[in-house]
Amino acid sequence: MPDPTFPKALAFDVFGTVVDWRTSITRESSAFLARIGQDPGDAAAFADAWRGQYIAAMIGMRKSGREFVPLDVLHREMLEAALRERGVDPTSLEEPLLADWNRAWHRLDPWPDAVEGLTRLKARFPIVTLSNGNVALLLAMARRGGLPWDAILGAEVSRAYKPDPKAYLRTADLLGIAPGELCLVAAHHGDLAAARACGLLTAYVDRPDEYGGAPAPDAHYEQAWEWSAVSLTDLADRLEC
Amino acid sequence: MPDPTFPKALAFDVFGTVVDWRTSITRESSAFLARIGQDPGDAAAFADAWRGQYIAAMIGMRKSGREFVPLDVLHREMLEAALRERGVDPTSLEEPLLADWNRAWHRLDPWPDAVEGLTRLKARFPIVTLSNGNVALLLAMARRGGLPWDAILGAEVSRAYKPDPKAYLRTADLLGIAPGELCLVAAHHGDLAAARACGLLTAYVDRPDEYGGAPAPDAHYEQAWEWSAVSLTDLADRLEC
Repeated sequence: MPDPTFPKALAFDVFGTVVDWRTSITRESSAFLARIGQDPGDAAAFADAWRGQYIAAMIGMRKSGREFVPLDVLHREMLEAALRERGVDPTSLEEPLLADWNRAWHRLDPWPDAVEGLTRLKARFPIVTLSNGNVALLLAMARRGGLPWDAILGAEVSRAYKPDPKAYLRTADLLGIAPGELCLVAAHHGDLAAARACGLLTAYVDRPDEYGGAPAPDAHYEQAWEWSAVSLTDLADRLEC
Repeated sequence: MPDPTFPKALAFDVFGTVVDWRTSITRESSAFLARIGQDPGDAAAFADAWRGQYIAAMIGMRKSGREFVPLDVLHREMLEAALRERGVDPTSLEEPLLADWNRAWHRLDPWPDAVEGLTRLKARFPIVTLSNGNVALLLAMARRGGLPWDAILGAEVSRAYKPDPKAYLRTADLLGIAPGELCLVAAHHGDLAAARACGLLTAYVDRPDEYGGAPAPDAHYEQAWEWSAVSLTDLADRLEC
């Protein structure tokens, strides 16, 4: 018999949990920096600067009362800000180059265990995204990387960015289940803490390389989660898949 | 080189186009009618009566200003109305039986060509649902039937039922493409006509058995669509997949 606390569905954070954003954004930014005459050796720092504005952007969206915009739009604003920080005027660059650079977020590589882990988990549980990424981004990423989602849900469908409770609660509602029947799978303690506050089950996946060895910015939210795993294949073992 | 008018993505009507609702609902209703002491031989007529309220329910949702509710809720109202038409008081039946009967719509069998056709089309195009079915319904149906959707979109995500233009336009928007880059695939001329009015490309799939041989209620909307096929495998041929 399965453990009675087993969830009815799994919802996944994606950036950092399923895909390795930093390696992919560094690789792509290295090529784009070279194309605009900047030092490609700074690409990892550029990736960190670009992503570094992320949490502030999420909080800004929520506090400003700005109407919901897809993450592609916020990524573009963050890209232009990161360029300005380096002294590059983004208006001096060609639009197709900027648009393609921004779409690097559609082309993130999965962590090595992700496709196998998701495929095994999917055999037992519905697996959906619960990401702040927009639908077009997550769909392109899934097709490129072979991520076998049952459905693409999250911020754009819920019209609210995590950690807004609406993002978690609306996802459970769309799946036709109670919050306590849905498990968030994430590499981020802050995300899991927000999900738990909404009544979701929680599964932590350790991704020590997400920030290139630097400490996670949300480590202080760490708690005893329902499940804790070192990879998605390890999580599949723990959920008896 | 591909035909320049080829779409960037395919969006599918589901009930009747991908799955054979009438055979499945008849089979399930036969068993449920027997359980409540009604003649199971009337199951096909009962399926038609249940589904027969569908277009009126869609129009009613749109005209009444009623806040959006998922199709599961409308199916339940239509089930209770179909029972009342037969002289059965639904409040005399047990809730779990009614709930399970209503979930028959989650358990519709694909047409024989559907899984192979979708799998071939998916190799070239993103394939998404553009159905009035709610997410939980379409997800359960896809897992049961092996329908390999890239994403589950449609009425519940768009907060508008077809043929409301918002349902079509919002789906293109979520995919990050122009309406003219999205092709609706449907067995229903009325659905295709509404999509074309929004600027979408259109592909008709003939399903002469959808209504058990009876004529389609929307045959008068027939036009020359961009593509016309006799099955989803035939559509895959025509789209060079």
